[in-house]
Amino acid sequence: MNTFGSKWSFTSFGESHGAAIGGVLDGVPAGITIDMNLIRTELDKRAGRTIHGLEQDLSKTQVRVSARAKNEPDEVEWLSGVLNGVTLGTPIAFLIRNKDARPEDYEYLKHTYRVGHADKVYEQKYGIRDYRGGGRASARETAARVVAGCLAKQELATKGVCVNARLIQVGAETDPAKFAETIAAYQREGDSIGGIIECHINGLPVGTGEPIFNKLQAELAFAVMSINACKGFEYGTGFEGVTQPGSAINHLSGGIAGGISDGSEIIFRCVFKPTPTTKKALDELLNSQMVNGQIVHRSDPCVAVRAVPVVEAMTALALVQFL
Amino acid sequence: MNTFGSKWSFTSFGESHGAAIGGVLDGVPAGITIDMNLIRTELDKRAGRTIHGLEQDLSKTQVRVSARAKNEPDEVEWLSGVLNGVTLGTPIAFLIRNKDARPEDYEYLKHTYRVGHADKVYEQKYGIRDYRGGGRASARETAARVVAGCLAKQELATKGVCVNARLIQVGAETDPAKFAETIAAYQREGDSIGGIIECHINGLPVGTGEPIFNKLQAELAFAVMSINACKGFEYGTGFEGVTQPGSAINHLSGGIAGGISDGSEIIFRCVFKPTPTTKKALDELLNSQMVNGQIVHRSDPCVAVRAVPVVEAMTALALVQFL
Amino acid sequence: MNTFGSKWSFTSFGESHGAAIGGVLDGVPAGITIDMNLIRTELDKRAGRTIHGLEQDLSKTQVRVSARAKNEPDEVEWLSGVLNGVTLGTPIAFLIRNKDARPEDYEYLKHTYRVGHADKVYEQKYGIRDYRGGGRASARETAARVVAGCLAKQELATKGVCVNARLIQVGAETDPAKFAETIAAYQREGDSIGGIIECHINGLPVGTGEPIFNKLQAELAFAVMSINACKGFEYGTGFEGVTQPGSAINHLSGGIAGGISDGSEIIFRCVFKPTPTTKKALDELLNSQMVNGQIVHRSDPCVAVRAVPVVEAMTALALVQFL
Amino acid sequence: MNTFGSKWSFTSFGESHGAAIGGVLDGVPAGITIDMNLIRTELDKRAGRTIHGLEQDLSKTQVRVSARAKNEPDEVEWLSGVLNGVTLGTPIAFLIRNKDARPEDYEYLKHTYRVGHADKVYEQKYGIRDYRGGGRASARETAARVVAGCLAKQELATKGVCVNARLIQVGAETDPAKFAETIAAYQREGDSIGGIIECHINGLPVGTGEPIFNKLQAELAFAVMSINACKGFEYGTGFEGVTQPGSAINHLSGGIAGGISDGSEIIFRCVFKPTPTTKKALDELLNSQMVNGQIVHRSDPCVAVRAVPVVEAMTALALVQFL
Repeated sequence: MNTFGSKWSFTSFGESHGAAIGGVLDGVPAGITIDMNLIRTELDKRAGRTIHGLEQDLSKTQVRVSARAKNEPDEVEWLSGVLNGVTLGTPIAFLIRNKDARPEDYEYLKHTYRVGHADKVYEQKYGIRDYRGGGRASARETAARVVAGCLAKQELATKGVCVNARLIQVGAETDPAKFAETIAAYQREGDSIGGIIECHINGLPVGTGEPIFNKLQAELAFAVMSINACKGFEYGTGFEGVTQPGSAINHLSGGIAGGISDGSEIIFRCVFKPTPTTKKALDELLNSQMVNGQIVHRSDPCVAVRAVPVVEAMTALALVQFL
Repeated sequence: MNTFGSKWSFTSFGESHGAAIGGVLDGVPAGITIDMNLIRTELDKRAGRTIHGLEQDLSKTQVRVSARAKNEPDEVEWLSGVLNGVTLGTPIAFLIRNKDARPEDYEYLKHTYRVGHADKVYEQKYGIRDYRGGGRASARETAARVVAGCLAKQELATKGVCVNARLIQVGAETDPAKFAETIAAYQREGDSIGGIIECHINGLPVGTGEPIFNKLQAELAFAVMSINACKGFEYGTGFEGVTQPGSAINHLSGGIAGGISDGSEIIFRCVFKPTPTTKKALDELLNSQMVNGQIVHRSDPCVAVRAVPVVEAMTALALVQFL
Repeated sequence: MNTFGSKWSFTSFGESHGAAIGGVLDGVPAGITIDMNLIRTELDKRAGRTIHGLEQDLSKTQVRVSARAKNEPDEVEWLSGVLNGVTLGTPIAFLIRNKDARPEDYEYLKHTYRVGHADKVYEQKYGIRDYRGGGRASARETAARVVAGCLAKQELATKGVCVNARLIQVGAETDPAKFAETIAAYQREGDSIGGIIECHINGLPVGTGEPIFNKLQAELAFAVMSINACKGFEYGTGFEGVTQPGSAINHLSGGIAGGISDGSEIIFRCVFKPTPTTKKALDELLNSQMVNGQIVHRSDPCVAVRAVPVVEAMTALALVQFL
Repeated sequence: MNTFGSKWSFTSFGESHGAAIGGVLDGVPAGITIDMNLIRTELDKRAGRTIHGLEQDLSKTQVRVSARAKNEPDEVEWLSGVLNGVTLGTPIAFLIRNKDARPEDYEYLKHTYRVGHADKVYEQKYGIRDYRGGGRASARETAARVVAGCLAKQELATKGVCVNARLIQVGAETDPAKFAETIAAYQREGDSIGGIIECHINGLPVGTGEPIFNKLQAELAFAVMSINACKGFEYGTGFEGVTQPGSAINHLSGGIAGGISDGSEIIFRCVFKPTPTTKKALDELLNSQMVNGQIVHRSDPCVAVRAVPVVEAMTALALVQFL
């Protein structure tokens, strides 16, 4: 349920407004010096503190992709499996305290459910719910994935494998130079917008992937579709390929044949819907329930921006199972 | 590798031109009377002997969606787990003999690789390859999935869960009335074309799916992306939803929130590329290698047609893990 | 449930008096030439056709350790994963037909349960039972384990690892020269007796075993305790070591420290109870139920004899997971 | 590797002298009020602070079963999965700080290995070792098992299942009234001694256990043999049963038939060797290496005493997988 992978087995835990989120990563070889800078950088990207490729534009447009971004950064506390920064081969446990947890912001949700969120289904499934924010369903848990993903990336790098994801579309906009502007426009309206991320995998050895159920594309889809707000996955010619006949010159395979990598670059895309808790929607939902309109709600104008490091992390965790 | 699921654990085996394909399905409750007619019907659909919704048109247009379809039907031999047609609660093993296996048709492939097929990567991965047809990479193994899927469907039916997939697009054509005609046109050219399948799941209880890695959509994507020729998966608003703002009235969730079913209908789509071994491509590939042009090759003008029962089978196998 | 191991994943199927027993072995590397003679030899040992180390004595004492032993030998039919006797890297499926199945011998059991057998608990658990002999609970399924174990042994041999089990005690007798005689004495009385098997593993690389739950001894115990009639497992000093103080010179570790092999020989022992369906017990049980005393029942005077190749097979399957 | 179970999946982490040990328990139903007193009691037993059934004798004999026992008790910090003491259905993460960690006590081990410990094999396996005490191989990690086991026990109790383990033998002594005295005698000599624990399971529903590899006895053996210092497992007639003929009146099955519980009491026994780091052995080992004899080493005269709650915990964790 909360464990991903078997060779590198990653168990995630934590609610968004509980004591901490974190994880246990088991199967990491001994002797790896953890790259703390990489983790710092990737966590900052996920937190919306810095945005891959968008930094300058953001300062101009005053886009704030995360309400939490202004706060102090996520600090990783290592509990086990590491001695003087070097992995021991034993399970690596870490946690990130929820310093910014303000359960009181969510007190009003104790007896209501947010539209488009998992609040209601969680309560139906478990009969109980951590109403303080998204609880377990919050995207905050992806921070733990990013930490684990960084170790997976380090391991992949030693084999010459490189994972790079980037935003290629925001709403209808496909020119990266205009992404920040587009997002800012939605934010000004108290609205949000979706995005498409493209991920490139280079250096993957021929033969990666396991017939027949654990095809490389199936494992990548599984990993990526487990990220909050992801609505679709495609590789190679994808959905648009439906109109191309079998005789077309360019049989773009996306680097995979029969579920196994063929040694060329792997390319896949995934789509992220806009966060459903927009100011507009909230106003409408809570209008009759709140006497005082002072709702302090924190949501993102474009979660796809912050999903980029998470897509890389999950891709790395999926790939490392095969090596 | 060749096992799908844990509660209902399905292990598939067999090469396309070996003695047999088959599977072992473990975890099926005792006391189920196997619906042999359902299996017969679904296997015929997969074999291209009958085509869901296209039967009449096919007779007119002379479409033959499978070169094997003219042959005798696949016969399931039950090896264990069944007594007088009723399941015993022990592992159900079955096989389907490869009666129509004609390895000699593929003798010419012993020293060459088919474009767009897994021939080459299999040899690179394993150092050995069953050159007789696709071997393990052949879509023939999906027959075993269909058999297992039928038992899963029976179990789902007892809980009121129903899985229905259908072809919604062939090439650029979205009018089902014209699918047969479209396919026939490609076939006449010795060409092939892709298709999109839409799958509807009804009656699924609220709360199906497991946060956070085994989200319902992640498990469905994993199951469906493991089918040969599948290039993409999306649910709810999917890729097109990228242009819809968060404030849009219709927050089509596809029946899933936070990775858990919300009790409404689940809808997903998946795309199948055309079979790459077209007559055109083969002519070109083998031109200089064959003295005599009498290549007897069997391939399908639109594998998406035959993938419909396989999508249903894999969906059923994915869902039954949660019940 | 019916699958053992993850790297070499062995799925067993079959009831003792159904069509066949067999298995699927997934994860075996490509390119191994299967040693059919080894399989023949080990299956014969398991069937009681030949007895490791006891052959000559048996001919003198007229011991027949298996009523089935006089019949034709088990024939393995290979369904997949093998081309010209060489493994393909794809799942290896095989079956052994139940040629000697005589369900009519067991017709009288349709409405009764054998003492000390699993008949009753199976019916309680599943609500249905294959009353024809032991069904799934029969030790006949161990034949499939032996086949899979032979492939595991071949793989281990390439790494220099050797597994050898032998009977070290029959009843109170510890002199191998007198085992056949002892067994014969019990058989003449229509009775049966237990035995202890000792297994030696040589050549295992230092570091085999995974802390903390998958300790080498835990995996070996799990593998061996899953064999029918096995009632105990111990390694190193075992139960007798309870009286040795920590300061004793000989800290016999059994080749394992902290759950990891230390490079020396591994030694473990396991005990097998006598088969509970003795002629004596049956006479008593069925006295009032049978008009005609002609009960044709087939049972073994000392199952430990036939368990030797099964212990080796399960040990090999357990070890191969770690390599 | 460090995860036990699938339905209730328990992942353990931590080195004995690192920041903390702990675990993540996934699959626990929502709505359980955690019994903090039970956890306190069981942790104290494991720490040797109180000894089940031996309390009074101990005060008289001045037995100190653990050098750490005099210190402050283990404190459990709950990180996730619990809201106001009630489980949320999400993964429960907890940690226990190593307050008493005194790495300097073990500084002398940086370049030597303790006899009978896993020091050397860990270094051989991983190429690196946490030389501060046993590290991951230390029995300290069993504290995390005890915490998880308490939750399993609570769940079992709701189904009427009860697990009770007790020491039945210390060295050659089988009279519980003399256990404390026996242990004290060995301790005075700077020596240690082994013990046998018997565990009774009551209330287990008929049909618990899964043929054929996951037989109840195989799962119990796997769980118990994973505990440090455990050298053997047996149930029912066990090793002594080897001398009983099949016709013996008392076919003591130990409550299991065909790998499935039969509804009666389950009884098994397991043996624990003495801790190998005795004062005697250390004196000998270090004689030539230490100038100053002031070795401060902490070890237990009879680890079997402290293993009792761990055996119960692992048994409970094994059983809860089946319910």
